[in-house]
Amino acid sequence: MPSISVKGQHMPESPIRKLVPFAEKAYKAKKTVYHLNIGQPDIKSPVLAMDAVANHSLEILAYTRSEGSQEYREKIATYYQNNNIPVEANEIIVTTGGSEALLFAMGSIADAGDEIIIPEPFYANYNGFATASDVNIVPVISKIEDNFALPPISEFEKLITPKTKAILICNPGNPTGYLYSKEEIEKLAAIVKKHDLFLIADEVYREFTYDGLKHFSILETEGLEEHAIIIDSVSKRYSMCGARIGCLVSKNKQVIKTALKFAQARLSPPTFAQIASEAALSTPQSYFDEVIEEYQERRNTLVENLQAIPGLKVGVPKGAFYCIAELPVKNSDAFAQWLLEEFDVNGETIMVAPAGGFYSSPGVGLNQIRIAYVLNKESLIKAVEILRIALQEYKD
Amino acid sequence: MPSISVKGQHMPESPIRKLVPFAEKAYKAKKTVYHLNIGQPDIKSPVLAMDAVANHSLEILAYTRSEGSQEYREKIATYYQNNNIPVEANEIIVTTGGSEALLFAMGSIADAGDEIIIPEPFYANYNGFATASDVNIVPVISKIEDNFALPPISEFEKLITPKTKAILICNPGNPTGYLYSKEEIEKLAAIVKKHDLFLIADEVYREFTYDGLKHFSILETEGLEEHAIIIDSVSKRYSMCGARIGCLVSKNKQVIKTALKFAQARLSPPTFAQIASEAALSTPQSYFDEVIEEYQERRNTLVENLQAIPGLKVGVPKGAFYCIAELPVKNSDAFAQWLLEEFDVNGETIMVAPAGGFYSSPGVGLNQIRIAYVLNKESLIKAVEILRIALQEYKD
Ligand SMILES: Cc1ncc(COP(=O)(O)O)c(C=O)c1O
Ligand SMILES: Cc1ncc(COP(=O)(O)O)c(C=O)c1O
Repeated sequence: MPSISVKGQHMPESPIRKLVPFAEKAYKAKKTVYHLNIGQPDIKSPVLAMDAVANHSLEILAYTRSEGSQEYREKIATYYQNNNIPVEANEIIVTTGGSEALLFAMGSIADAGDEIIIPEPFYANYNGFATASDVNIVPVISKIEDNFALPPISEFEKLITPKTKAILICNPGNPTGYLYSKEEIEKLAAIVKKHDLFLIADEVYREFTYDGLKHFSILETEGLEEHAIIIDSVSKRYSMCGARIGCLVSKNKQVIKTALKFAQARLSPPTFAQIASEAALSTPQSYFDEVIEEYQERRNTLVENLQAIPGLKVGVPKGAFYCIAELPVKNSDAFAQWLLEEFDVNGETIMVAPAGGFYSSPGVGLNQIRIAYVLNKESLIKAVEILRIALQEYKD
Repeated sequence: MPSISVKGQHMPESPIRKLVPFAEKAYKAKKTVYHLNIGQPDIKSPVLAMDAVANHSLEILAYTRSEGSQEYREKIATYYQNNNIPVEANEIIVTTGGSEALLFAMGSIADAGDEIIIPEPFYANYNGFATASDVNIVPVISKIEDNFALPPISEFEKLITPKTKAILICNPGNPTGYLYSKEEIEKLAAIVKKHDLFLIADEVYREFTYDGLKHFSILETEGLEEHAIIIDSVSKRYSMCGARIGCLVSKNKQVIKTALKFAQARLSPPTFAQIASEAALSTPQSYFDEVIEEYQERRNTLVENLQAIPGLKVGVPKGAFYCIAELPVKNSDAFAQWLLEEFDVNGETIMVAPAGGFYSSPGVGLNQIRIAYVLNKESLIKAVEILRIALQEYKD
């Protein structure tokens, strides 16, 4: 029998996947499950984007250019310019989701055995893209006590080796909800310039910031042109996860030239999805205002109710729609499974994402969970109440 | 300034890309250019697929399951069963084009530095996926004199090392148009079994076979269950290249389990495109009969006219919609450029794909070109006439 690759064996499984059989058991037992584990927003996609596809008049569903259709790239450039990010169409490569942009970025800057430093906890699929690219992730721990603010720059500096090619941040963060300040971005800018590294910023949650705070992009930092690579996506911005459209943005011509070769190999991003995404760019500000208002209220509700639980710590999110909670349990994997398998309050229970999968350092975050607030407020209140009761009952 | 990865520098550019500036020069000079270089069919996509998307009623464009929607996978399984290929839904992973299936296959079975043997000339983007996966391609030359039939098995056997993980074939072939016989597939089956390798077959052109010949899939071979991986795509089958839907098929559970982890990392294949592809599976046989009739006539016209050119050799295609022609020139790169830049017949010229990019052995195929017959017959006749005159005038 032929053998699977070592990297295939090491490819991490999604931290939630392991729980799926237990969720199915809960459904079979007719429990209602509140899903705090998912990143699929419940918000409607902009009608004008969905209509643009419904009104298509294509007779041949052809490839677009590998870098994305020119019209779409030009409109994205305008979007960035309106957001104080000075980019031109030819500095953008349209990708199949932010996922593919991450893969292209890693492949363009790192060879097998090279290293990328990432503050943890981080989006678990960075592990998958790194494994697929034969790249090693070197984590820097950020702490719940600091709301997951940027760790001291000295912590990064300690980890830089000749194999280090980049620092990767997610801003605002999944799973932390942390929003980096201008000062933090400038500190990162200084260190990548000093050590000739790239700074990759996953800004797919750019629009989702609360308390009146504004997102500060790495491309708003002067002098970072040759170092900055932005990862972006329509998935969360327009609640169009199934489109599979993202982009890689850089003012470094070598980066664009190289990423384009990866893009050419796979021919084209999806055509219908580009139609939807181009139309989505005309979404009025009122759509975002409403969505953000809604998420901010959900966050307030969630955090308030969580903070009322004895022994629970929560990193207060300022952006995105996730937060990390530290529970008075030893192992949140076992707790999450128990919630589905053995526990209910009047036939209702919750599904959470154990946070261990968001850490690369072994043994860290084992008592934490990630909560996504993509449910309405009433459900969030009920879900947190279930969590409160569960923590009283649970023995580990 | 931070540096690009070595693999990024080595990522091959599309063999046609280099000619694009010269094509643009030709347009500027107001020349009509017959495109013999492209693989984008001019055939209309099935109306029922395009309508399925126009009639969508989605309010939230959500992720589907990473392995593709269950309904769609079940329908693909039925399609295969109807084609004498015994597969179940859970042996199929829906991918973003055949391109992504190739990437998942390589990542699932090979580590950095491992080798995959491929008969050349081969689809140029295999180079890109191999480079992205840190895998080395080891070529076996197939010859125009044999119409690019399978090279003797001893040639493969010579190249097998402890690092060899698979043999990859394209059947019917791009760029050769060669259709492997049952006997050839069985020879390949024997050698992969003997050496515990995978046999990956890119069968994206399965439907396109001529002269009454029938495609024989690697999964029709008994005893190959643990070794066979099929790469498939809707791109050419339904002239839906822009959908970006393909799949990876294997009866080897480890392969599916591993490829699924790659699929999970990138979350989901495109949703609208799955709607189109699912509907496309109901395309009546008459659609294919017409399309294949059309391609067969084009092939006949093309090959007849090419064979009338003195000093030109052509590999007669039995499938797909490409053929390789060997020209009485030294360097088809220079010739292709000259055709666009300096030549015309009454304001008309042709764009061809130099075949060097389809070979991995250096210096091989430099006097060959690939011709795609995705143009109508009248255009093909004119284009070959232009080629005939050009070869008379050209001096290298
Ligand atoms: C931080 C982050 N980056 C990237 C992605 C990838 O999303 P997509 O490929 O849908 O754009 C996600 C999706 O959840 C995410 O949370
Ligand atoms: C032989 C072969 N394999 C795979 C592909 C990939 O096509 P797609 O990603 O559109 O399915 C192509 C496209 O031209 C091809 O010719």
